[in-house]
Amino acid sequence: MNGTKGKILNLLREESAIVSGEAISTTLGLSRTAIWKHIQKLQHCGYDIRASGKGYQLMVEPDVPYAWEFTGREKAIHFYPEVSSTMDIARKLARGGCPALTVVTAERQTLGRGRLQRNWQSETGGLYFTVVLRPNLAPMLSLRVNFCVSLVMAKTLQQLYGIPAVVKWPNDILVSDRKIAGMLSEMEAETDRVAYVNVGIGLNVNNDPSSAVPGAVSLKEIVGQPVSRKTILAAYLDALEARLETIDSINVIDEWKTQTVTIGRKVKIQTQTETSEGTAVDVDENGSLILRLADGSLKTIIYGDCFHL
Amino acid sequence: MNGTKGKILNLLREESAIVSGEAISTTLGLSRTAIWKHIQKLQHCGYDIRASGKGYQLMVEPDVPYAWEFTGREKAIHFYPEVSSTMDIARKLARGGCPALTVVTAERQTLGRGRLQRNWQSETGGLYFTVVLRPNLAPMLSLRVNFCVSLVMAKTLQQLYGIPAVVKWPNDILVSDRKIAGMLSEMEAETDRVAYVNVGIGLNVNNDPSSAVPGAVSLKEIVGQPVSRKTILAAYLDALEARLETIDSINVIDEWKTQTVTIGRKVKIQTQTETSEGTAVDVDENGSLILRLADGSLKTIIYGDCFHL
Repeated sequence: MNGTKGKILNLLREESAIVSGEAISTTLGLSRTAIWKHIQKLQHCGYDIRASGKGYQLMVEPDVPYAWEFTGREKAIHFYPEVSSTMDIARKLARGGCPALTVVTAERQTLGRGRLQRNWQSETGGLYFTVVLRPNLAPMLSLRVNFCVSLVMAKTLQQLYGIPAVVKWPNDILVSDRKIAGMLSEMEAETDRVAYVNVGIGLNVNNDPSSAVPGAVSLKEIVGQPVSRKTILAAYLDALEARLETIDSINVIDEWKTQTVTIGRKVKIQTQTETSEGTAVDVDENGSLILRLADGSLKTIIYGDCFHL
Repeated sequence: MNGTKGKILNLLREESAIVSGEAISTTLGLSRTAIWKHIQKLQHCGYDIRASGKGYQLMVEPDVPYAWEFTGREKAIHFYPEVSSTMDIARKLARGGCPALTVVTAERQTLGRGRLQRNWQSETGGLYFTVVLRPNLAPMLSLRVNFCVSLVMAKTLQQLYGIPAVVKWPNDILVSDRKIAGMLSEMEAETDRVAYVNVGIGLNVNNDPSSAVPGAVSLKEIVGQPVSRKTILAAYLDALEARLETIDSINVIDEWKTQTVTIGRKVKIQTQTETSEGTAVDVDENGSLILRLADGSLKTIIYGDCFHL
């Protein structure tokens, strides 16, 4: 059904003019009544499709990541106008055995989470989604997935908009030292085998995060105009799928290090048990930060909150 | 309710003779009818308690890890005569938020599992249980829990029976080169925090594993007579609880290494992707095996099947 809506939209997009119901009906091999029902659903979802005696014309379409916007992924994208948290829905799907690259995305999250159960402001206009991944990795190496996920997002933004998106240890994305995206993950694993890693990303797109989160910035602000969340998500999923194919054989940390602004910086790191200050000198093969402390000694920190000083 | 049964049993155990219903009733502050109902339930569970006009006498008790056998842990022990797998039940409990050190144990498992979805023979007389743990550890360090769990079991068997139980990398327990226990684990974690690690242990106690599993041995065979599963589980849980208190600060791997027979041996290691042969020269701080290959180079293996050659 979602596939049919995508095909109808593509036919309407090909013509800037009116397309007759009969032409759509013939092309897709469906009755004109069936076509009309799909058009009504699309109108209900915010697509401005003018219906007249001559046929249909697509005037304006909403920038909403409906499943039918992702050709070939229609069955894997679960869009909701509002959810508690995309992580909650994705966890149920993952436990139930859904395939890798299943995506849960929502216009709004009423209980959007950041790491460590922190609130994640999720106002309309941002891109909020969780991807279910099933990497062929030992659980001990699964943090590589987080570095892969943020690296791929930074590169996707660079490629789509030519902006200097970089990664900050451990998994934030910055543009000009302002946070544009954050992520969190959860996983289920046996001793030898990851069952799933669910990665949640919050990307500031057309929302205005700076009022709620000092130092945050949105793509709209950087690019100078609203940009398409559908375009970002489609490009991101393609790039992520390609990069994950070698996650077990090529350590993504090396590539991540070419895109980070953390190494070389003076930083403060807060973990659940302690706070450390020093210079970030390296990130090791597991993604742990190597910190040189004031006394010259080195300290390895697996994960934590990082503040660039 | 389970607490009351434990108290009744303890009163009966104190006297090898008959204890009057009135004495029990007075001591526990319960009606004689209530006492009688508990006695009936105990009889139904295999306790040979003789009831006469003079009172009750405990003749023989079964060696079954009923919850009431574990004073102070009555609410945390879930015994089943038969389950699919103790891992399945424990997973539901862990996801539902049960406290750490919750135990699921069963007389028989119809679908008992070893690592990697292998079948685990679970005939009557063995001790099969899963413990829910919630260690304060980064997920990347969670394999330490597995080493802790097998180390504590080996030491418990040494202390209870004076037998030379040792650990074999990664997490088996051997006596005289024959396997007496195996384990598996699964976990759920956020990036920074383990939600739970469920550890399943299968210990050959009074069963006869060697017919089904060549090279396996039971405690009964080694000690020369049947031994009490209740005693083992109670001692094990106390020792495990104590050892886990420092799991975040004292790396258990060092102690594990003092009890292993793998280091120094020629071994073959099978992982999901490859097979390696060499000499086991060390186990690193994460529990990974360091193997010296035929060409003299070192190889680090996170987890896998280990065959002593």
